[in-house]
Amino acid sequence: MKKLFLLLSLPFFAYSQNNDSVFIKKIANEVLANGQAHSYLKQLTKGVGGRLAGSPQMVKAEQWGLQTFKNIGSDKAWLQECLVPHWVRGKNDKVTISINGSTKTLDAAALGNSMGSRKSITAPLLAIADFDELEKRKDEVKGKIVYYNAGFNPTNVQPFTSYGQSGGYRRSGASRAAKYGAVGIMIRSLSEATDNNPHTGVMAYNDSFPKIPAVALGLQDADYVWQQRNTNNAKISMLTHGVMLPDTIGHNVIAELTGTEFPNEYITIGGHLDSWDLAEGAHDDGAGIVQTIEILRTFKALGYKPKRTIRFVLFANEENGLRGGTKYAEEAKAKNEKHIFALESDAGGFTPRSFGFTTANDVQLEKVKAWAKLFKPYGIDDFNKGGGGADIGPLKNGNPNIVMSGLQPDGQRYFDYHHARNDVLENVNKRELLLGALNMAALVYMVDQYGL
Amino acid sequence: MKKLFLLLSLPFFAYSQNNDSVFIKKIANEVLANGQAHSYLKQLTKGVGGRLAGSPQMVKAEQWGLQTFKNIGSDKAWLQECLVPHWVRGKNDKVTISINGSTKTLDAAALGNSMGSRKSITAPLLAIADFDELEKRKDEVKGKIVYYNAGFNPTNVQPFTSYGQSGGYRRSGASRAAKYGAVGIMIRSLSEATDNNPHTGVMAYNDSFPKIPAVALGLQDADYVWQQRNTNNAKISMLTHGVMLPDTIGHNVIAELTGTEFPNEYITIGGHLDSWDLAEGAHDDGAGIVQTIEILRTFKALGYKPKRTIRFVLFANEENGLRGGTKYAEEAKAKNEKHIFALESDAGGFTPRSFGFTTANDVQLEKVKAWAKLFKPYGIDDFNKGGGGADIGPLKNGNPNIVMSGLQPDGQRYFDYHHARNDVLENVNKRELLLGALNMAALVYMVDQYGL
Repeated sequence: MKKLFLLLSLPFFAYSQNNDSVFIKKIANEVLANGQAHSYLKQLTKGVGGRLAGSPQMVKAEQWGLQTFKNIGSDKAWLQECLVPHWVRGKNDKVTISINGSTKTLDAAALGNSMGSRKSITAPLLAIADFDELEKRKDEVKGKIVYYNAGFNPTNVQPFTSYGQSGGYRRSGASRAAKYGAVGIMIRSLSEATDNNPHTGVMAYNDSFPKIPAVALGLQDADYVWQQRNTNNAKISMLTHGVMLPDTIGHNVIAELTGTEFPNEYITIGGHLDSWDLAEGAHDDGAGIVQTIEILRTFKALGYKPKRTIRFVLFANEENGLRGGTKYAEEAKAKNEKHIFALESDAGGFTPRSFGFTTANDVQLEKVKAWAKLFKPYGIDDFNKGGGGADIGPLKNGNPNIVMSGLQPDGQRYFDYHHARNDVLENVNKRELLLGALNMAALVYMVDQYGL
Repeated sequence: MKKLFLLLSLPFFAYSQNNDSVFIKKIANEVLANGQAHSYLKQLTKGVGGRLAGSPQMVKAEQWGLQTFKNIGSDKAWLQECLVPHWVRGKNDKVTISINGSTKTLDAAALGNSMGSRKSITAPLLAIADFDELEKRKDEVKGKIVYYNAGFNPTNVQPFTSYGQSGGYRRSGASRAAKYGAVGIMIRSLSEATDNNPHTGVMAYNDSFPKIPAVALGLQDADYVWQQRNTNNAKISMLTHGVMLPDTIGHNVIAELTGTEFPNEYITIGGHLDSWDLAEGAHDDGAGIVQTIEILRTFKALGYKPKRTIRFVLFANEENGLRGGTKYAEEAKAKNEKHIFALESDAGGFTPRSFGFTTANDVQLEKVKAWAKLFKPYGIDDFNKGGGGADIGPLKNGNPNIVMSGLQPDGQRYFDYHHARNDVLENVNKRELLLGALNMAALVYMVDQYGL
């Protein structure tokens, strides 16, 4: 019986796979020949620029996103209000190192959400390798400015692994040093770049300890500071102006193509519209934003009428709060929406290599894995287990059957630009960006056709 | 019997694969943690710069390569003399378009090996799509400067496919138009870049027709010229200075690690040392050069004593003559050397995706394909059929059993930089470059261990 079923079902399967490969080729040709993702990205990066939650640029970005959705012709497009954190860097960060009266300016950037020193503070340098050394030398910390040299481990083939391993220094390095009396901290930027751009990013304070200023150093200057670790009289001066204002109003920007057969089954595609203030946010996450919009454009250009309802979401606040994704999930739950699939692009506009999937069970995983060969011609080598994204993460809570997926582009260059001033349009390759969009569009098409 | 053999051999196979994966991990750690490829590339691009065959910079590059090999400590290192073409661009190329007395300068570069106009020539523009249109409009060509708009087909997923399809316009566009009386030609640069840098590259004349000047236009200016195709009175002025001097002396730079078990079996690894004059030749082919040197450095650092003799070759002249590869093969044949494997890197210093193999038979192909899984942890998704490289190509003649292989990095950005002034160090990512080197080193190790 099983064999008979296989024999009967195989030709149909082959037929549909063939139909699917034909439609995916149409998607590919439309995106590669007529794709506007790079033009959209130019509008967002050069027309709007850096757009931290709460900033005037973020308001401009929301309006741009909404208008772009309307121009393309989504069935619906709206703003979904949410409260967002409102951190402001203020004036330029300034950090110097002085040794025997000779002073050198360090290329530094205050970490996101950190409190400014307001006045310049000067203190002896304590340069340490890592948290282990911090604990061993805790008696030396008081009154010092601590520098953590914990960098990426270059032997990790995937830099995202290194980011996971070293990220704790940025997130909690300040409070861990403040516990022992440090008056400020500096970290080695979370990057392996060969240039000297500092990389900001979110940190958080432990309320039990003083909220001391915290900055990231460009890697060349980080090397320089590390070389001074045994210099007796190295002093650091630090002037930062960060301030956390009361929460303010932000918005997720949402467009919808309403399903023709199963309008109550939802598929969500998205990225985050906010970016750090120092950069244009081209890769992080302008790329995910314009790929999301490009998928809508492509479906409209091809006259594709989805079976299920597809939501295109530009999330309001990933970098320093995740309020956008949280709000979207809350409202979905309140309205009892049946979300079956969510796909996020937030790892840069680089050549796509694979998709990761977090499924509720192995049946779902096998179902999507059977599609992988359709993506091979477009450079996707693997559909793997595990993956999703920060903004779609909250949808999973209380919705155990949803399948989450993340686009996994080649990750070697991501941390060259991540949260740094060189995350600009010029460092995004048009074709790499479009290849990501076309593979995402193809995956959404497959989920829309066959459900999960 | 076959089953018994399998049962007996499987544990051994598993054991050796495990040993191999351990050694390949050592290679990977050495290259990623201590790799010097990026430093070598800085020396070559910033210390030497553009280095066309016959140029003073190429002499400097040869000396740098030889000294670097000696410093690392190869068993032997020498220069292998060959005659190379000697084309000189001369003064700056200048091309303008005038319409009704209004003149615009076009960003243009004379094609390699093309003859200069010497004096400025001015002629009406004839802008055509392709060779088909040239044939249809041949009666209009006389006295004109022809512009071919034949660009890359963006729907090709691999830009190398597009390069293959459009390359004929650069190589033979001049003579095909000269046949009908054109006085000069311009091509759309072989690229899909969003900037306006012109991309040079080799062309050749058919001696039956006048040798007219030929240039490539940056893509924004190419679009502009194409928009004027129906303007009646558009005139092009062109001033180029290219001259082909008599052949001169160049050198392949060769280092050797002599085999400890089979010294008479040769493995060759290489790239080409020459580059176009306009660029630093960072991706093309500085990357292949420094990866080749990095493999030698890594084997020495690990104390690896190869079974077979490994040659590290910096070829003298790929861009406009292929004289280096030809000479190397000639001497190998004259000395009756048994070359079993040759590996080339000449597709840029981008994240490696696969290796291509040209084998004499399917047994060889299956043998190397069985190794592919060892490379998966380092980002290599595929060992495929077909591949090699221009410089190692001549080794195949008269040596049918040799296996040829080419490193296949991600190709989306290659033609953004190829033969253009932005092929500079800053556009090479250190990690992507090193990943190529480590996978090449691992492949050479496997061939050295097991033969072919």
